[in-house]
Amino acid sequence: MKKALAEFIGTFTLVLFGTGTAVLGGGIEGIGTPGIALAFGLSIVAMAYSIGTISGCHINPAVSIAMFINKRMPLKELCIYLVAQILGGIVATLTLRTFLLASSLSTDNLGQNGFGALSASGAFLVEMILTFIFVLVVMTTTGKQGNAAFAGLAIGLTLTLVHLLGIPLTGTSVNPARSIAPALFTGQAALSELWLFILAPIVGGVLAALVSKFVLSSEK
Amino acid sequence: MKKALAEFIGTFTLVLFGTGTAVLGGGIEGIGTPGIALAFGLSIVAMAYSIGTISGCHINPAVSIAMFINKRMPLKELCIYLVAQILGGIVATLTLRTFLLASSLSTDNLGQNGFGALSASGAFLVEMILTFIFVLVVMTTTGKQGNAAFAGLAIGLTLTLVHLLGIPLTGTSVNPARSIAPALFTGQAALSELWLFILAPIVGGVLAALVSKFVLSSEK
Amino acid sequence: MKKALAEFIGTFTLVLFGTGTAVLGGGIEGIGTPGIALAFGLSIVAMAYSIGTISGCHINPAVSIAMFINKRMPLKELCIYLVAQILGGIVATLTLRTFLLASSLSTDNLGQNGFGALSASGAFLVEMILTFIFVLVVMTTTGKQGNAAFAGLAIGLTLTLVHLLGIPLTGTSVNPARSIAPALFTGQAALSELWLFILAPIVGGVLAALVSKFVLSSEK
Amino acid sequence: MKKALAEFIGTFTLVLFGTGTAVLGGGIEGIGTPGIALAFGLSIVAMAYSIGTISGCHINPAVSIAMFINKRMPLKELCIYLVAQILGGIVATLTLRTFLLASSLSTDNLGQNGFGALSASGAFLVEMILTFIFVLVVMTTTGKQGNAAFAGLAIGLTLTLVHLLGIPLTGTSVNPARSIAPALFTGQAALSELWLFILAPIVGGVLAALVSKFVLSSEK
Repeated sequence: MKKALAEFIGTFTLVLFGTGTAVLGGGIEGIGTPGIALAFGLSIVAMAYSIGTISGCHINPAVSIAMFINKRMPLKELCIYLVAQILGGIVATLTLRTFLLASSLSTDNLGQNGFGALSASGAFLVEMILTFIFVLVVMTTTGKQGNAAFAGLAIGLTLTLVHLLGIPLTGTSVNPARSIAPALFTGQAALSELWLFILAPIVGGVLAALVSKFVLSSEK
Repeated sequence: MKKALAEFIGTFTLVLFGTGTAVLGGGIEGIGTPGIALAFGLSIVAMAYSIGTISGCHINPAVSIAMFINKRMPLKELCIYLVAQILGGIVATLTLRTFLLASSLSTDNLGQNGFGALSASGAFLVEMILTFIFVLVVMTTTGKQGNAAFAGLAIGLTLTLVHLLGIPLTGTSVNPARSIAPALFTGQAALSELWLFILAPIVGGVLAALVSKFVLSSEK
Repeated sequence: MKKALAEFIGTFTLVLFGTGTAVLGGGIEGIGTPGIALAFGLSIVAMAYSIGTISGCHINPAVSIAMFINKRMPLKELCIYLVAQILGGIVATLTLRTFLLASSLSTDNLGQNGFGALSASGAFLVEMILTFIFVLVVMTTTGKQGNAAFAGLAIGLTLTLVHLLGIPLTGTSVNPARSIAPALFTGQAALSELWLFILAPIVGGVLAALVSKFVLSSEK
Repeated sequence: MKKALAEFIGTFTLVLFGTGTAVLGGGIEGIGTPGIALAFGLSIVAMAYSIGTISGCHINPAVSIAMFINKRMPLKELCIYLVAQILGGIVATLTLRTFLLASSLSTDNLGQNGFGALSASGAFLVEMILTFIFVLVVMTTTGKQGNAAFAGLAIGLTLTLVHLLGIPLTGTSVNPARSIAPALFTGQAALSELWLFILAPIVGGVLAALVSKFVLSSEK
């Protein structure tokens, strides 16, 4: 239960700060793409060294599924983590919505992901590759040869890296929990593309788990 | 006494560099929101690894009160820390004011916090949640399972994170000592809203202390 | 073979994210020079703590040749690394090309290097000096007195540093594998200048290996 | 002699990348104040973990003099360090000048410091306080209670912090070797103000050494 609460707080933080800066930080004097990418990455750094000591700080269903595939967590724990992560994301989006309403700002943009100018197959490829790289870093840095002390920093900076490239393409998901919540509260357009931001990160994450285990032999 | 001087120097540094970049770094070719957020966060990193070895580098009443709540410091020491922090902030604001006068710049803006477009309840919620996350990271990274060597880096980057989201909303306090000094020297508008930037961070910090202790069991 | 795959994945990541952000992040609201410099540097950080545990994370022919010069790897392994690095770069450029085509964007700019406004001798000097500094940091931080845990972070941030200065001059190569792939797919202009972005980094890297060994005595 | 060469290379790197980004990265699409601040700071990080293992990476006369004051280095070594640092800066400025000439750019701006809109006393105060904070972090992180592994990162990020505030005021020196070289090659205006950028950092550094020793007891 303590682990579930840790994952809830962690995903809440990631989604609130990540999508929040994306929504509030726009415009030419705003925070810009590097600032948004930094917010996502620093959320991981912040959570990895705090709640990470309790739950491992997955805060991402694609990470938890990869951990499950490589037998680092049992099925029952996986289910608890997934529920906690999705709920954490939803409460984060509702909190952001409250901030926006209190500022008399529009709630049409809650940081939802979308294909943008990409075809569906192009967006799938982007999300799959970005998640592959991200989860590969997660699996190897927390694996048998990884430097556990530096893992949180390396993983967080990798999420920043992934956003630097992905924001102009799909807005960057690489995390179903980060995509579900904003889509639920912004209506049909985001909902109709949501399947991709659930499926592609999971496929990318599973591929990373397999490469980490069978190609790089990085499992414990 | 050595601890008090360390907290004085630390809070002086945080307030001088944080509010100083906010005041001097404006405009489209300026430092921007990410630069200001970085200045606040790097002040923590700088001080954590220097004066932090002496006083623990709270440099924030909300942090010291959370430490007191979780019995990590006695009441008398808390009082000394609070005085040192508030004085450090005041000397920082006076120093910034001197820099501005020497540059023939206006001293109307000393980096004071304000509700901005938010309602008072909205601003309270923002400051409470941002401080909750910030102090939760402080308590857990310096707690029994935390990585002490990385704590300063993780806490500093969390303060940057908190500013990335909070600057467009309230300017971000999460630290009464950071808010008191500029308000004292910029007149009625900031003074009339100062109560919120004292109260909300303390409430958020106390909540973080309680969650850290009773929910996450991270106390020593 | 595992090492070759690690170098392939590492160079793929560096070239995809580095050149990808350079191509997609342009314009005044885009990612800017610091964002591109960060993408190159964070690619190293991400890979150093992940595939670095397997292959050492050279992901740069200039680094591998310097390692060979200082007898840290045999000739046969050097050849395998070079092939894996160049192939990783090529697959990265083809992936970026696919992203651009899926977004209906031009594929004329794939992040290729060029002299810009510099003379050939000026560009050679720039690339040689930048690579000298970069490879000197690689050799010393991974050498007998280096802090192995921090090496990945220090090397990555050095690559960011090198790009901050080099982007307005040559676009910054300091890595033949990073320059070969984009040049192969963007035609004559980049191809005709490619020799410099192969030769100058190698010369700079060899100089760094010699200074590291004979002047600073940092070899094991 | 090895130490002198290490200091020469280190100061060369700091001045080349720091002033080089300041000169080449201007304009609205350029690197901006945060990018320049990052270049100075990352130069320290890069050098601390490389040549720092040989010479301690002072690469700043104000740091070396503070070390001498606190008896961490003998007078003869101090003199050698100062000469190496000043020469490193001069070769860096000449290298930057070569880059600019090869790009047909003006050599009027070599990143020299100046009072800007400040009075001389205001500029002195700014440089003295900024150097005090910077050298205080150097002395304490490398002192008896400091975390030696993190010192390079903390000191580098402190130099970034100091530049975020100081660039709009004096351009930020806090390092006589960084100011001497550009002043020598840009003529009367910078030369006539150079005394301040030599004297104020030394005064600030000596104060930091004394506070570190007698107030914070951080000496070994």
